[in-house]
Formats: sequence, C-alpha cells, structure tokens
Amino acid sequence: MQLGMVGLGKMGGNMAGRLRDKGHEVVGFDFDPELRDVASLAELAQRLAAPRTIWLMVPAGDPTRETIDQLAEVLESGDLIIEGGNSHYADDRKCAEALRERGIAYVDAGVSGGVWGRQEGYGIMVGGEPEDVARAEPIFTALTPDDGGYVTAGGVGAGHFVKMVHNGIEYGMMQAFAEGYELMAASDIVDDVPGTFDSWRQGTVVRSWLLDLLVRALREDPGLESIRGYAQDSGEGRWTVQAAVDHAVPAPVISAALFARFASRQDDSPAMKVVAALRNQFGGHEVTSSGDDPEQTPGS
Amino acid sequence: MQLGMVGLGKMGGNMAGRLRDKGHEVVGFDFDPELRDVASLAELAQRLAAPRTIWLMVPAGDPTRETIDQLAEVLESGDLIIEGGNSHYADDRKCAEALRERGIAYVDAGVSGGVWGRQEGYGIMVGGEPEDVARAEPIFTALTPDDGGYVTAGGVGAGHFVKMVHNGIEYGMMQAFAEGYELMAASDIVDDVPGTFDSWRQGTVVRSWLLDLLVRALREDPGLESIRGYAQDSGEGRWTVQAAVDHAVPAPVISAALFARFASRQDDSPAMKVVAALRNQFGGHEVTSSGDDPEQTPGS
Amino acid sequence: MQLGMVGLGKMGGNMAGRLRDKGHEVVGFDFDPELRDVASLAELAQRLAAPRTIWLMVPAGDPTRETIDQLAEVLESGDLIIEGGNSHYADDRKCAEALRERGIAYVDAGVSGGVWGRQEGYGIMVGGEPEDVARAEPIFTALTPDDGGYVTAGGVGAGHFVKMVHNGIEYGMMQAFAEGYELMAASDIVDDVPGTFDSWRQGTVVRSWLLDLLVRALREDPGLESIRGYAQDSGEGRWTVQAAVDHAVPAPVISAALFARFASRQDDSPAMKVVAALRNQFGGHEVTSSGDDPEQTPGS
Amino acid sequence: MQLGMVGLGKMGGNMAGRLRDKGHEVVGFDFDPELRDVASLAELAQRLAAPRTIWLMVPAGDPTRETIDQLAEVLESGDLIIEGGNSHYADDRKCAEALRERGIAYVDAGVSGGVWGRQEGYGIMVGGEPEDVARAEPIFTALTPDDGGYVTAGGVGAGHFVKMVHNGIEYGMMQAFAEGYELMAASDIVDDVPGTFDSWRQGTVVRSWLLDLLVRALREDPGLESIRGYAQDSGEGRWTVQAAVDHAVPAPVISAALFARFASRQDDSPAMKVVAALRNQFGGHEVTSSGDDPEQTPGS
Repeated sequence: MQLGMVGLGKMGGNMAGRLRDKGHEVVGFDFDPELRDVASLAELAQRLAAPRTIWLMVPAGDPTRETIDQLAEVLESGDLIIEGGNSHYADDRKCAEALRERGIAYVDAGVSGGVWGRQEGYGIMVGGEPEDVARAEPIFTALTPDDGGYVTAGGVGAGHFVKMVHNGIEYGMMQAFAEGYELMAASDIVDDVPGTFDSWRQGTVVRSWLLDLLVRALREDPGLESIRGYAQDSGEGRWTVQAAVDHAVPAPVISAALFARFASRQDDSPAMKVVAALRNQFGGHEVTSSGDDPEQTPGS
Repeated sequence: MQLGMVGLGKMGGNMAGRLRDKGHEVVGFDFDPELRDVASLAELAQRLAAPRTIWLMVPAGDPTRETIDQLAEVLESGDLIIEGGNSHYADDRKCAEALRERGIAYVDAGVSGGVWGRQEGYGIMVGGEPEDVARAEPIFTALTPDDGGYVTAGGVGAGHFVKMVHNGIEYGMMQAFAEGYELMAASDIVDDVPGTFDSWRQGTVVRSWLLDLLVRALREDPGLESIRGYAQDSGEGRWTVQAAVDHAVPAPVISAALFARFASRQDDSPAMKVVAALRNQFGGHEVTSSGDDPEQTPGS
Repeated sequence: MQLGMVGLGKMGGNMAGRLRDKGHEVVGFDFDPELRDVASLAELAQRLAAPRTIWLMVPAGDPTRETIDQLAEVLESGDLIIEGGNSHYADDRKCAEALRERGIAYVDAGVSGGVWGRQEGYGIMVGGEPEDVARAEPIFTALTPDDGGYVTAGGVGAGHFVKMVHNGIEYGMMQAFAEGYELMAASDIVDDVPGTFDSWRQGTVVRSWLLDLLVRALREDPGLESIRGYAQDSGEGRWTVQAAVDHAVPAPVISAALFARFASRQDDSPAMKVVAALRNQFGGHEVTSSGDDPEQTPGS
Repeated sequence: MQLGMVGLGKMGGNMAGRLRDKGHEVVGFDFDPELRDVASLAELAQRLAAPRTIWLMVPAGDPTRETIDQLAEVLESGDLIIEGGNSHYADDRKCAEALRERGIAYVDAGVSGGVWGRQEGYGIMVGGEPEDVARAEPIFTALTPDDGGYVTAGGVGAGHFVKMVHNGIEYGMMQAFAEGYELMAASDIVDDVPGTFDSWRQGTVVRSWLLDLLVRALREDPGLESIRGYAQDSGEGRWTVQAAVDHAVPAPVISAALFARFASRQDDSPAMKVVAALRNQFGGHEVTSSGDDPEQTPGS
C-alpha cells in the first residue's frame, strides 16, 4: 500500500527501506533535503491518495506534537496518522481526541529492534481502534519478522504503554547482566568472563538477544576498557517507574536499574556527600577518609 | 568414554540418558533400587576401569559432602570426581584440597537447562585444573548442545561460581518480566497482555528463552489464576548477593529480585507491622485502617 | 491576629485550638455544623476584617481546589490564602497564578506533627513571596514549638515540595527500623527485641522520634501481634519518587520503602505469579511446590 | 569497680576517661607507650585483683582474636572478658566456647555513640549469660547515659548482633536523609535547603540525632562543597545484609543503602560499562554518547 513517512533518520529511513523492499510505496519527508522525497508536509499530502496513511517517526515530545498539529492542517477527514515514535501514552490520548474532531484517525505504534530491525524485522506494538489498525495491517506485517507479528495491545495509547513497559523490562534485564558481569570481574576466581557469557548462549536459562549482544561486545573489547560506565536513559524507563507508582505496582528491579543509570552519570553524588558528612560528624573529623568505621574506631 | 553417575533423579537420570544416547557408557548409582545399575559406591568403583571418572548429581550441602567422603574411601589415586550439583564454590575448594591428598582430582561443573536439557543440551560451566577438565571433555561436549559448548571458567570452584552468578542474573531477568507483567495487568489500557508478550518474541530487545517460557505459561493460563504468587529460592540467589556484598559489588537488581521472593512467602510481614504501628502511633489510633495519611489528615 | 480556618477535622481542629491558646482569634468553617463557627465561606469572609488571612486544611486534590475556587468568589484583592493541606507543589503554582489575577496572595504550608502537634508544636515549611509569608508570621510562630521555627523554603510550592521530601525521608527511616525489627525477630539470638529498641533511645546513632514511637508501640504490644503488616501510603511518598525520577535523582531507599508498602497491601502478587510460573516452566510441573531449585534438582 | 581496658584509642580512651570520671579504677594497656598504664597484658593481669574484668576495644577480626588468645594465657578461671569492639556475632560464640574450657567468662558488648559518648554516654547492647553480665553491671551503667540504660539482648553474640542491626538501620536512615537532600538540591524550587533541615528539628516526624548532625554539617558547609561523595562502610552493614539473606528477611532499604556506598567508591562502574556496551550494540555505535534512546532514535 501507499504510505507517507515523516522522519527519515536512522529508524524512519530503515523502516522506509524495509517497506519498499516488501513492495510498498513510501513517500518520505524529512528536514534534511538529501533524505526526502517531498519538500513539505503539504506536498506529502498532495502526493498521497486519500484516504492517506502517514507514519510519524520524529523525536518524542514537542517535535511530535508540532508535526501532528501541522499534519492536521493538510490532511482530511478519513486520513490516518500512525505515531511510531516514543510518545507518552497520555499524549497519544490527547492527540487522538484532538484529531477525532477533524475526522482523522490515530494509531500509536511502539517500535523495537533498533538498527537490526531493517534486516530482521521490528517488534511492533499497536494501540488504536480495531478498524483503524486494520487499515494499516499491511504496513505492520511488512515491518515485523516473517514468523512473528505485531500485537494490538489495546485502544489508543496501549501501543506506547506496552512499548514503555518493554523498555522498563529491558532496563532490568540489562542491569541483571551488568551486575553479574561486575561480580565475576571483581572475583579472583573467574579467569574467562567473556567465555562464560558465550557458553551461556546454549542451554541456559538466561539465553537471550541481550546475551548475544553482550558476547559480541566482549569479543570486541573483552574488558570493556574502551567504554565508560556512563549510561543514558531514554525517558521510557522513567515513565515505567512513574506508571508503576501511579498504579501502586512494586517495581524494585526496574527502578533500581533506572537509578543505577542516573548514578552512572554523576561525577559526584550529592546524596553520598550527606552520608560522608554524617559519618564525619559522628565519628570525628580525623577519621573521615579512613577505611574504618568512624562510629566505632577502637584504638590499640 | 566410561562414566560413573551418582544420583539418578530428574537431572542425573536425564543426563545419564543423554550421555548413553551419545554413545557413552554410564554406570549409575542411586538410593532408589529401581533407578540404579549398581547397589553401592563400592560396587560402582569396581565396575569402572581405572582411572575412573565419577559425576555427582546429588543435593547440595551435607548429601554431597558425605557422598564425596564415601567415594574417597573406594576410589584410588588418579581417579576424578566431577561435582555437578549446586555446591557453593567455597565448598568445592575444601573438597578439592582434601581429595588432592589422596591423589583424587576434582572438577566442579555448574549445570543449567532443567528438564529441557536432555533434548536441547545443557549449559555447563566448569572449574578445575586444565588437565583434569581435559580428561572429561567428551562428557562435557556430549552434554552440551551441538552448536554450543561448555566453558572452563577458571580453577576449582569457578564452575559453581559462574553458575551461581548465572542464577543471580536469572533472578533479575525473571523479576523484570514479572514487574512488567504486573504493570500491564494493573493498567486499564492493555487489553491483550499474553498477546503483547507473544509479539515481543520477534524483533524486540527482550526476546529470550524466559520470554518464550512466559508466553507458554500464559497460553496455558492467560491470567495466571491457577498459580499463587509464591516463589521459592534455591540458595544460589542468596549466595550471589552474599558474594556481591563480600566483593563490594553493588547488586541492587539481583538483591531486589531475591527479596521479592522472600516477601512472597510471608503470610504477614513483621517489617510492615512496624510501619503500620508507627503510622498508628503518630497518626492516632482511629485512622490506622483508613487510606488517608495519618500524619496529615485535615478535616472538613 | 485574626485567622479564618477552613477544615476543622483532627488536624485543623487541633491547630485552631493551639492558635486560640496562644491568643489568636480563629473563625472556623467546616461542613460539620458541630465544629464550625460560621455556616458558609461567605459568612467566614464577612466575619473577618480585610485584609483577610484564611488557612485551608482540607483533603488534597479536588476538595482543596474546589474550596479555593469558592473562596476566590468571596475574598477580595489583598486577602491571603494559606494552603496548609497536602497539595502537590505543581498545584500550588497553578492556584497561586489563578489567584494572583484577582489580587489574592497564596502561600503553601507543609505541616508535620500529627496528633502530637497541638501540644508539642508543629513543624511548618512555607513557600511563597516573602511579603506574603511575613504577613502570616504570627500564625507560623504560634503553631511551631517555642524553641524551633518554621522555614520559608522558597517561593510558592516550596513548602509542599519540602514537606513531600520530608515524608519521603520518613518512609525510608520507617522502613529501616522495620527491616531491623524483622531481622532481630527472625533470628534465634535476640531474646529482648523491645528492650533493645528501648536501649537505643540513649547514646546511639539511631535515636529519633520514630524510635520513641516504636518503643511505645512495642510496650503496648511487644510482638505486634494485634497489628497487620498492611501499610497505606499517603501520596507524598509517591510524589517524592516521581519527583526524583523527574530530576534524575537516584532514590533507591525511598522507592524501596514505597514499594514495600504497595506489596504489603496485596493479597497475592501478580508479579510473583510470573516468577512462580517461570520456575514451573523451566523446572517441570511436578516440582513447582517444592523447596528445591526446579532448574537444578539432582536426584538420589 | 576495677577494670582492665585493652585498647586506648579514640573509643577505648574516651570510655576509660568516662569510667574514671564516674569513680571506677581503670588500668589500661595499648601498644602506644604514651597511652598505657601497663606495658603488657601479663602486667595488666598482675595489676588486677581476681576475679578480673577486662574490656577489649581493639579492631575487629584478627587483632581481637589474637588479643583474646593472648589474654587467655595470662588470665585465670573466674575472670571475665568483655569484647566491646565490632566482632561478628559468630566469632563471639566461637571465642566464648574456647574460653569456657578455661573457666573464663565472655560477654560481648556493642557500643554506639562515637566521639560524643564520653560526654553524653554510650548506647551499650550486651550479650552473655545473665550472671556474667551482672558482674559488669557497674561498668555498663557508668558508660550509658544517666537516664537510659544498656540492654542485655540475649546470650553470647546477641550484643554484637543487635549492634550490627543498629548499624544497618543507621545506614538506611542516613541514605534516606541523603536522598532527600539530593532531591531538594536538584530541584529549582527549594532556596534554603539547610534552613529546611533545621526547621525539621522541631515538631516533625523525622527529628533525630542524625538530623541534628546533618544540620550541624550544613552550618559548616551549606553546599557540602568540601566533602566528596565517597562513603566507606564498616563491615556491619555488610553483615546485616548477609544475616538478612541468611534468615530470608527482605532488606531492600538497608541493602540499597549499602550498595550506594559501594558505588560511591567506584571511579568507573564495570556494571554500567555493560549497560553502555549493550545500548551501543543495539543502538548503533554513533549514538552511544547521545542523550537519545539508541534503540529508538527516529530521524527528522
């Protein structure tokens, strides 16, 4: 089928490529003239036959909201916008409601798979009205792997909600591997940490794509010496913890993984200054920098 | 090659079966007369040609220690014991030292794979002297999948150390999926939780054997209504946390997963009695059971 | 000075009592005719001389917002509203902005102290413009203990922000005592748990008002047998975690304390159903209910 | 009464001073000739009338064990050793058993209070047989504050067990204040963080000695700029977590506080290298250092 794609960066560009490979017609718009087929959203609307389907793949937050506002001006009743970026599920609901007044349908799609998706297919989680999702089914099946599928997780917002949860789970899994790595590396008993991870790829309970990636990373740099222990977070981990708090769901693992990322980015920890200051206060100034318990430093 | 197998329960029995399928000669001993080939450890020693190789697959702790003591009496210098159970790595070192005085070699092997291992192959992590490990290599390769292998993680104890860490990672991964499940189930936005997990099996970052198993469990019981939220722990999760503390390695995710299991087994929480009692104390008796903040319950 | 008090429940009533004891004139309104001095907000406005100062002590959220809307109708430019309830700091900012258009000043005040405050004085944390705070200073000093004071933490919202953080810290402290209690009670080594807490009231690092309250609770019920381990949360603990996430501040202790409360209120844990189901899947059905590691259950 | 004191460092020296102020006779030994009254343990035994009471205040572990071994050679049946250092409760039990064969009694005493104890009195938690504890009661009451007391928490080991738990609770409380501090400092809403903590000293739920100390630290250095966020741990926090794991007691707050200290001492985190490496793997090399979600970086 025919699809407009807005945002032709790494993700959008790869997805457009995969869709074309599968025989779909993709008309793309991007701010970068080198990447795009049309020079404006208005031209994009003109190039597509009604009812149009537009896939958005732009940064979350204001860029996505603004693009949707601009699209609303050039689209018509009956058209469909698929928000494939990382919008918050609450934003999806607001956008969908605003577009509904103009007769424009809205579907949200969480996309996983990163740079590997073009070749292997993406994981796609969709939220929307069943009839809207059905219209775009050829697109979803072309983007997903041959032997797997996409899911319609629920109404508008559900796609991004479950993608958010997916990322939260991912945070926990990554941190579990990370802690295991550090413990093996810190022990004086394990001689072959990369080989151990490699052996786990067959027959064990922890075998997973993340394990495959970790083995690949350790092959390139067995001690990870070229990499700093500095980890960004994408926002979706934060949203997962906040949604868990909103729903009174205990999320100790996902939150611990998120907080470890926060801490990794601090040159010095204000919180640990307080701990150090308190130890100094009750233990006396002169022992602060020692390895002893300042509260209890017997002599002799 | 020829192998003595001590312990023919679910794990030992399946492993003996796989080894025989691969052409090895296994002489088995178990307390259960129906399962065994020989009636005693002494008879086992007689049936095997020196230098012997004996694989132990008995419960960790006293049963394993006692079996090793008894084997030491019937084996000879030059024989090899492979401890395939769940011994603590510190116990491995003690056993190996005691056996060395008698000239008996000791290798520890952590085994992963559960009931699926007979068919798919086990993950095997080995600790020991290279020449001792080399003697048993045909056994290790027969037990592991065709396309994967075992690892010699280090000296004696390293096999059980990395198996312990493997299980700790496993705890964290399982808890990450568990928290994600609960959040999706608690929201009113996700209509198809089992289908969402199923969709993640292709193209996403969280794809893994544990995800495959979770999808299987949800197919059998989509709301997990037949299962109580009561989770045992095997000891290896505990050892992982204790080893992390010993090595000053932060392990917030693995410990959180362990503590969640502890809490799942409590009918009532002594700790939370204290929290409830404190809220009662500072908020006044009559508000304890209400949903309000007893510290700050304005009127009107 | 003269003060209107809206909300004469446990907190508001006690505060009004303390203010009258200290010589201030309090005119109170409440929905309960037995508690109030005036029958309506309009009558309250009539009874107070301009410029008026009104203290709000009603439940957070809609009740507070609605009361402020109604007050805006009966107050005049130059009047001052002090929001003493548990509003979120972001709501304070919205309210203050709306009232500013009518010339009505707004100060937010976080109040701590619970039922003990009438006698011992309250802890009060204030947010607002300095000139607005200064107008109400006689009220703040009357409510706080003789030897201590209130703080102006910052502009509008800062009072509730720091009160929120105070409650988050309180969650962490309570949970620390709770974990220590459970560990002593679970050990077979401590014969006198209540006496141990009592001894800590003098000379130790953990001496605190919460410890005093815990000792009092243990005197009433040494094994806390009459109390269920079921703990509510007030909303401010949740806000603290969400604010920490918003600001990329690691908050592992406060979040762990919050999650422990969430878990304490669950009859069964959906998350732990997943963990149990996964153990069942990889260990085989028949071992689910046993205490053994289903992944690794050697025989014999 | 007469007491031998071994170890006259900051803790032991202050305790000896307080005991002398209270009218007790203290004969002290230390390796430092400037501090001691006697030149050897043998001379110490000679100077004390039988039955002797010796208080040990030397570093935990080997120094304490060796000192006890040496004391056993110079003491007689009927004498009493009080181990006032930071021994592990399991070591207490071993020492007591060994000494019992020689007729020497053993009492363990956990001491809290730091440099403030000389003036304000120490918190003392005792473990031992009631008749042994009774013999030393004058010492315990002289060391503790006038209005408070010591506790006999249970048999041998119980004193150090509850001191260990005390320190674990202390870790959790300190971290709770620390997280609250960081959140207030990170926000743009709180102008007076030191003043806010100061205001909490009266009337609030979090009032405590640690809060007093934090206020004192913030008076000296309002932004804690002179202090690095680097926090040692004394071993007792580790033991608390390990004891919790042994007893299947959930300890999420105490362990989180411990892990935060571990992390504060790392220049770079091996675990977070893994997280960074994994993000790099699935997101593509060129986005690793950006703030975007490498898994999902739409273009435009």
